[in-house]
Amino acid sequence: MYKHTVQYYETDKMGITHHSNYIRWMEEARVDFLKSTGFGYDKLEEMGIISPVVTVDCKYKKTTTFPEEIYIDVRVEEFRGIRLKLAYIMKRENGEVVFEGNSSHCFLNAQGSPIRVDVELPEFYRILAGMCLDAAESD
Amino acid sequence: MYKHTVQYYETDKMGITHHSNYIRWMEEARVDFLKSTGFGYDKLEEMGIISPVVTVDCKYKKTTTFPEEIYIDVRVEEFRGIRLKLAYIMKRENGEVVFEGNSSHCFLNAQGSPIRVDVELPEFYRILAGMCLDAAESD
Amino acid sequence: MYKHTVQYYETDKMGITHHSNYIRWMEEARVDFLKSTGFGYDKLEEMGIISPVVTVDCKYKKTTTFPEEIYIDVRVEEFRGIRLKLAYIMKRENGEVVFEGNSSHCFLNAQGSPIRVDVELPEFYRILAGMCLDAAESD
Amino acid sequence: MYKHTVQYYETDKMGITHHSNYIRWMEEARVDFLKSTGFGYDKLEEMGIISPVVTVDCKYKKTTTFPEEIYIDVRVEEFRGIRLKLAYIMKRENGEVVFEGNSSHCFLNAQGSPIRVDVELPEFYRILAGMCLDAAESD
Repeated sequence: MYKHTVQYYETDKMGITHHSNYIRWMEEARVDFLKSTGFGYDKLEEMGIISPVVTVDCKYKKTTTFPEEIYIDVRVEEFRGIRLKLAYIMKRENGEVVFEGNSSHCFLNAQGSPIRVDVELPEFYRILAGMCLDAAESD
Repeated sequence: MYKHTVQYYETDKMGITHHSNYIRWMEEARVDFLKSTGFGYDKLEEMGIISPVVTVDCKYKKTTTFPEEIYIDVRVEEFRGIRLKLAYIMKRENGEVVFEGNSSHCFLNAQGSPIRVDVELPEFYRILAGMCLDAAESD
Repeated sequence: MYKHTVQYYETDKMGITHHSNYIRWMEEARVDFLKSTGFGYDKLEEMGIISPVVTVDCKYKKTTTFPEEIYIDVRVEEFRGIRLKLAYIMKRENGEVVFEGNSSHCFLNAQGSPIRVDVELPEFYRILAGMCLDAAESD
Repeated sequence: MYKHTVQYYETDKMGITHHSNYIRWMEEARVDFLKSTGFGYDKLEEMGIISPVVTVDCKYKKTTTFPEEIYIDVRVEEFRGIRLKLAYIMKRENGEVVFEGNSSHCFLNAQGSPIRVDVELPEFYRILAGMCLDAAESD
């Protein structure tokens, strides 16, 4: 599970973490998650593939602040080869859920055209799709 | 309509505006919008009221980059006195929609308890609720 | 003179503008300043020239906070063709100085090699060097 | 030694870490350093003491980018009880220096008045001043 320590510069004058930072932590956790699949952002970019964010949804359940440690769980919610949908749960060390969110992503080749990951990166697809099924079964 | 100029420091190595910044522009436009109602953030804070973000949803329609000018329209989508729901549309100067999003907000008093805005700040409520009706009628 | 309005997301839990943001405002003012010379960042990048920051110095004189308006003056402190040194003064609307800083920059071609601006971009050089002399004379 | 992993959202369209982020990493490393002295930011704030940044100087020696790991060393450069001056060196894993900087800080009580740390927080002063002497001797 990915851990992010809330930084002083991430707080605002309300005394809490500014809400925009959770989007950045989602990215941090996603980067870590994709790296664990063997297809990290840097590897994808070396292959000429970029993966822009298409949607982000955020539910702020509890406020957090400096210098708390936040634990972030990333799961594959849906992936049929074109749009990858990820779900995120962020918790305090005591297990209290502070944030829930999800993001969806497409994959573009060097020409900026969307690709079918199941066709063009079958191994990457198999890993992600497999995680998706696992997640479903464990529910 | 609120205008934000994309800054160099808001871009990322993909060459485009990093997606986390749109959440900040939503806040910029919201601050400007609330100020126009006569109940700006600073006035609310002077009254001991803070307004945390409860949810944010983002749809990234087109990429933008430095040094584009982005025009942001804010509307009241729903407000019955407790949770304020706002909708945002961001466009380029040529009218092309680059982003659609919404956010919802509650209002807390100095003790951190949620307040009913229609009861405790009736003038603020009347202004926002009125905008909401106007928006519906103009559709 | 460039104007920046302090944003809510730029504050920290001390209730003031986080000090890292002044570096970003220096960039905003520099972008605006270079644009006024006819050689904006985007034009330079189209010519294959990038201009990394080599040094930054900051003196925080007074704290600022949301939603203050900050006025930023940029001057050419020194430029002999290789390293451009700029000075910044930030003031409140009432003229009170809140920040003083400077930055130095080199210019790299598409191959990443430093260029002599006086040789390769003589018009840009003449404008900047001229401002530098003017600044000296007006002191 | 404090380690920071460069995040995707910290890069800019030049493909490198945006220079403003180093100021934030200085803060991250400073927070970690002060915590190791037993007088972390959160403990100081509980005691009603805040420590604003007075000056920051930055020398950017080499560019860095996502997803590099940066190692940050913090030293006490000077401290006679009022203004704490810290020096920072940032290196890649292979030891290459990418950044050198320093920052100075004062300490304010709950009334916003500067305090003499040697008088009001003698233990904290002794620890920091001791580190300063150690640093000098080891040179």
